[in-house]
Amino acid sequence: MNITPYTRHAYYYETDKMGIVHHSNYVRILEEARVDLMAKAGLPFTEVEKAGLMIPVLSVSLDYKFPLRFDDEFEVRCRVTDFNGCKFSLKYEVWNLTTDKLTVSATTSHCFTDDKLMPVRLKKKFPEIYEIFSQFADDGKEDEK
Amino acid sequence: MNITPYTRHAYYYETDKMGIVHHSNYVRILEEARVDLMAKAGLPFTEVEKAGLMIPVLSVSLDYKFPLRFDDEFEVRCRVTDFNGCKFSLKYEVWNLTTDKLTVSATTSHCFTDDKLMPVRLKKKFPEIYEIFSQFADDGKEDEK
Amino acid sequence: MNITPYTRHAYYYETDKMGIVHHSNYVRILEEARVDLMAKAGLPFTEVEKAGLMIPVLSVSLDYKFPLRFDDEFEVRCRVTDFNGCKFSLKYEVWNLTTDKLTVSATTSHCFTDDKLMPVRLKKKFPEIYEIFSQFADDGKEDEK
Amino acid sequence: MNITPYTRHAYYYETDKMGIVHHSNYVRILEEARVDLMAKAGLPFTEVEKAGLMIPVLSVSLDYKFPLRFDDEFEVRCRVTDFNGCKFSLKYEVWNLTTDKLTVSATTSHCFTDDKLMPVRLKKKFPEIYEIFSQFADDGKEDEK
Repeated sequence: MNITPYTRHAYYYETDKMGIVHHSNYVRILEEARVDLMAKAGLPFTEVEKAGLMIPVLSVSLDYKFPLRFDDEFEVRCRVTDFNGCKFSLKYEVWNLTTDKLTVSATTSHCFTDDKLMPVRLKKKFPEIYEIFSQFADDGKEDEK
Repeated sequence: MNITPYTRHAYYYETDKMGIVHHSNYVRILEEARVDLMAKAGLPFTEVEKAGLMIPVLSVSLDYKFPLRFDDEFEVRCRVTDFNGCKFSLKYEVWNLTTDKLTVSATTSHCFTDDKLMPVRLKKKFPEIYEIFSQFADDGKEDEK
Repeated sequence: MNITPYTRHAYYYETDKMGIVHHSNYVRILEEARVDLMAKAGLPFTEVEKAGLMIPVLSVSLDYKFPLRFDDEFEVRCRVTDFNGCKFSLKYEVWNLTTDKLTVSATTSHCFTDDKLMPVRLKKKFPEIYEIFSQFADDGKEDEK
Repeated sequence: MNITPYTRHAYYYETDKMGIVHHSNYVRILEEARVDLMAKAGLPFTEVEKAGLMIPVLSVSLDYKFPLRFDDEFEVRCRVTDFNGCKFSLKYEVWNLTTDKLTVSATTSHCFTDDKLMPVRLKKKFPEIYEIFSQFADDGKEDEK
């Protein structure tokens, strides 16, 4: 799958008194990129949730390099890693397109559950979604080469 | 009912690049004060929702006077107005206790619905809650004198 | 000026436990639309602030009609009203393009100040910006007919 | 130093459509706890910034255990680790006092800079602040035993 990165401009309300985008907002930006990635892969998150599959966040880690400022355009490059049918991770890079600098590198990890938040074996219950994640994971390995 | 105002300090992440609390945050602060008011009146919002009563927001209006800055302590004074059994309004004043200036004056209006968001006649369905709102409204009238 | 409306999808993190976009987020959405409007009119907000002109918010009022839900696409139509060289207002309609319903109608009012937040007469200090706002205001009157 | 943990209730607007506090808000809660810790240690953040010392965030990592829901009371226990005069880390545990479960464990790392964001040697430039952080770090070691 060849998926274009998620991109937008930084909002005024995302800045703080240091004049830069507040560090908490990147967790939200990662979520925006994740939702965008899934939609572009034919897995709109609204459909996934309607089918009864939840994908909660287990962990987030972020390294802050250079800031975004108001109205800076940025792009989020992300790829699936470590998919095993029960869990997976995503690696992200947020690039400031206005300054051409790496802003944040980050990882999130997730599991698959039903709507009662009980673990689900993806391959058995949601084979089509399993296929898409398998392909994501292959693409991720390809990128690492 | 003699209810003490809601109070806290402004958070760092609530500021924007102008160095003041971003104007959108006051809508959230009003909600905090509303929840606090109801808890102090013996009507914790969690209980109200559990009983199947929803209180959606119909409108919000805010006038910005003087800003809050990071760590400024503020107090929200609020009172119920215009309660008629179906709808009510709240009037708020956010006071900056660090500078002793009025920061924001605001109004919100609300209705009562069931959990399908269909209108509810409070007096019939939730007589105890009706009583508390009646007393709120009387207190509000008293304050206006 | 013929300016295309601002549009995006509702983010997951903008929803609340009622399953709808939390009412506070519309104040942020109005700001996004305002910044977008000015950029499209040749007045990028970053340039305006660099030139030493601040445009603080004096008041906001919102009427909530029908909610936005996660991933709903919306469009914000806005126009300048009541421009007098010192102050102006904006009227907004947020339309849910997924359900084709009016979500929120709103007004914000603003003044012009220097970077010390002292009032500024736009015509004298920033004649080019004055011209653009005059044209905005004319467009607004046209729309009202 | 014996410092009481930071505590408050979860706000309504912090919840998302899953009915739990959105995972991005914990980054903000950690900041609240950090600011509170410093104030209680006699180092109010406003004073620190006025003195020209900035303490930017280098990294954040969070592990999500059990959720907070609306109005749940929580407590944040945090302690300084790895202070070396240039950098330090903080370890946090967010405990849900309503359910008595660990909600989030987290780490943030920080450096010291001047207001141009250039690195600062704390011991030389801000000896009093150096002393307080040294004591923090000793307390942290004590806790680990």
